[in-house]
Amino acid sequence: MTQTSGLVLFAHGARDAEWAEPFRDIAKRVAASRADLAVKLAFLEFQSPVLTDAISELVDAGHHHIRIAPLFMAQGGHLKNDVPKLLADIRARHPALNLELLPAIGDVAELRDAIAAWLVKATSGISA
Amino acid sequence: MTQTSGLVLFAHGARDAEWAEPFRDIAKRVAASRADLAVKLAFLEFQSPVLTDAISELVDAGHHHIRIAPLFMAQGGHLKNDVPKLLADIRARHPALNLELLPAIGDVAELRDAIAAWLVKATSGISA
Repeated sequence: MTQTSGLVLFAHGARDAEWAEPFRDIAKRVAASRADLAVKLAFLEFQSPVLTDAISELVDAGHHHIRIAPLFMAQGGHLKNDVPKLLADIRARHPALNLELLPAIGDVAELRDAIAAWLVKATSGISA
Repeated sequence: MTQTSGLVLFAHGARDAEWAEPFRDIAKRVAASRADLAVKLAFLEFQSPVLTDAISELVDAGHHHIRIAPLFMAQGGHLKNDVPKLLADIRARHPALNLELLPAIGDVAELRDAIAAWLVKATSGISA
């Protein structure tokens, strides 16, 4: 299948390479369901590729519609300040690119639901 | 209902108070399902209460079984280095306390599934 669209899972990154394992697993799960989509992992810092490089690679490979999914729990300084600057930089480099930013994990009601449901389950039976 | 058990949702914290909104919402959802459980939100930094203070409040209120749920995407330096030190400190202060640490969000297979499923849905129809 020709892939013309891409999804970049954008995580913070950490000095410890193992930190990225859950994100690699999520990327694999999404890619397994969406053969039509190029799925890539990118980082804000400490790990590579950084966001701008991941996007450039996708654009060079012919993807002209890219969504960025910030795998952050909530909208802090990184999403409010760093990401708009990165997006402006990406748009300046690739003016024809159709670029969209998805909400953070904690801003998705069904994911808050899933986390709450898991917590209810994980704490069942602990009452004395 | 008498609450003798507690659940502390432990988040990183940020300078921007709004950052904690998703966590407050998750705490509210869990509390709504578990009247038998004292549910509290605590932070590593920038916001209060910090973890040790939240635990002390629960212990002072008579809770002797407390679970801590780290609302972090993955196990980085905070969970690998900071949290063990905090737990050691809490155990030293409250030797009779039954304290358990739940896995990080990204270490729970069903939550990785939920995130992947949401991403598949959020990107449907973007292929050219």
